[in-house]
Amino acid sequence: MPESSRVAIVGAGSWGTALANLLTHNGQHLHWWVRSEENANHIRTWHHNPSYLGYLELLTGRMAITTNIAEAVGNADIIILAVPAAFLESSLSALPAGSFGGRMVVSAIKGIVPGSNQLIGDYLATRFGLQPQQFGVIAGPCHSEEIAMEKQSYLTLALPDENAARPLMRLLANRFVKVSWLADVTGIEYASVLKNIYALANGIAIGLGYGDNFQAVLISNALMEMGHFLKRINSPECVTGRSPYAGDLLVTAYSSFSRNRTFGTMIGKGYGVDFVKTEMKMVAEGYYAVHGIASITGSLGIGLPIVETVHNILYLGHPAQTEMKVLAQKLK
Amino acid sequence: MPESSRVAIVGAGSWGTALANLLTHNGQHLHWWVRSEENANHIRTWHHNPSYLGYLELLTGRMAITTNIAEAVGNADIIILAVPAAFLESSLSALPAGSFGGRMVVSAIKGIVPGSNQLIGDYLATRFGLQPQQFGVIAGPCHSEEIAMEKQSYLTLALPDENAARPLMRLLANRFVKVSWLADVTGIEYASVLKNIYALANGIAIGLGYGDNFQAVLISNALMEMGHFLKRINSPECVTGRSPYAGDLLVTAYSSFSRNRTFGTMIGKGYGVDFVKTEMKMVAEGYYAVHGIASITGSLGIGLPIVETVHNILYLGHPAQTEMKVLAQKLK
Repeated sequence: MPESSRVAIVGAGSWGTALANLLTHNGQHLHWWVRSEENANHIRTWHHNPSYLGYLELLTGRMAITTNIAEAVGNADIIILAVPAAFLESSLSALPAGSFGGRMVVSAIKGIVPGSNQLIGDYLATRFGLQPQQFGVIAGPCHSEEIAMEKQSYLTLALPDENAARPLMRLLANRFVKVSWLADVTGIEYASVLKNIYALANGIAIGLGYGDNFQAVLISNALMEMGHFLKRINSPECVTGRSPYAGDLLVTAYSSFSRNRTFGTMIGKGYGVDFVKTEMKMVAEGYYAVHGIASITGSLGIGLPIVETVHNILYLGHPAQTEMKVLAQKLK
Repeated sequence: MPESSRVAIVGAGSWGTALANLLTHNGQHLHWWVRSEENANHIRTWHHNPSYLGYLELLTGRMAITTNIAEAVGNADIIILAVPAAFLESSLSALPAGSFGGRMVVSAIKGIVPGSNQLIGDYLATRFGLQPQQFGVIAGPCHSEEIAMEKQSYLTLALPDENAARPLMRLLANRFVKVSWLADVTGIEYASVLKNIYALANGIAIGLGYGDNFQAVLISNALMEMGHFLKRINSPECVTGRSPYAGDLLVTAYSSFSRNRTFGTMIGKGYGVDFVKTEMKMVAEGYYAVHGIASITGSLGIGLPIVETVHNILYLGHPAQTEMKVLAQKLK
């Protein structure tokens, strides 16, 4: 990968916008796929994303903004995917199977592809024949809102090969973003999915009126549950205390910016799932993820009590209050 | 230890009051040492502690309230210590060296004895010849305010022998408090001390304007630092994800009830150490603990970057802003 990498970002949600802003401020030119023509025009004309992080003055001089996915992908060596997992299939639907040949694809998505219940990497391998060495993940305890506000943050780039990771690490790092590398692509993909489910669980507990003591125990148990799961899938890094594992869980579970926690809180307060889905403008990845993870763990025979609790509440219609009481007796 | 244990609680701060309330609601009679005659009289007359958790109607019919420490200790088989570590020496000063002979002493203190820089257990062994099997610790992610409000909580009783722990576990457990046992007395003592220091660090970061992303990374790193330390002192339980380790850290670092976090936040905002000590009514255990731990780790040759940062700020007068910037570069 040459120093002058050609980069595309797929998606103009809050994370896609924050990443586009980060890279262009580091001097990088990029191809930016924006779903709607209206938003694309707005960004080109006014240098602001009308839907997300609208306070950012975007460096559009360094952005080729397009609504044509084949054009964005075709012009890049590194493609960063930053659409919600639920929209990944439709976003990439116009691409022929060989579109990612010879390119590196990095997922900034923290979710599971609904329908097939696949991790992003597995989905891309199936649909586009992506090889393991072509695929990586950007993780971190990293709310896009804080990256946009230039708050000190930490990203982890997971790629099988550290040398292949270095150019992109350099593009992401700046005075307030520190970037680390890890090889554990699949482990981090799963950890990123699980933490959204745990944030949902925490939100549900908050909505039901549980306090700080309970939340701390719930999240400690979530950390252990995540460790247990990663061990079972032979994740090479079982140090769940590390930032892309524990840190990402903490920021999602405790931050007021977390949409998964907000989603859970509304469920805990007694609103119905359909109402909350309609009410919240942003997709809570955990809602889709819990169905996928429950199906994966079911087939692997791994018991994950917190995941099961959230699944029972969101998909099987069990009362949140009863489910959380049952879970409370299992925690320690 | 017979079922009808004779219990004393030493201290009427918020934790001592919450424990006294918990035990008496479980039908236990107890001897309660209250430091000031004025508060002791107030509690006897009005059934409320005028200084802490004043909304609790205390079951004084089951309490022998005394300002005489020898009387409280002399009448009990189990003595629960619940005074701030900084006041432990003075609180017990009237007791002869053999006062704890044949009794069990359980520390609900999460701090270090200033001056000697000893853990509570080590101090009691030195001063009173307490044997390891006589000494235990009550830990938990357990803010007394939430126990008082009957929010679902979890306590861990650490004692070398599980059978010896059972009667007290039964006395502490009720419909909203779940009690577990662990053998790792020293490990939990250290974890309880360290988490206050980490909460101070988190408070300092918040006061300086760091965001949620940074906090999550700081606390993940704190978890790893705690694990590293516990491993070095040969703590038998290095599963720092467990509630009395990670959970207690989380509740202290993230809860608005945490006085250590509040103390740190004021330091981060630029107030001087002496001002904050005067301003805060309650003692922030972490302030004293960081000095003790820094001295212990110094002599053991263990590097704990977060502890050192807090020590540099609070005791060596280094500017918080610079210290936190240096620390930020070490975190990952």
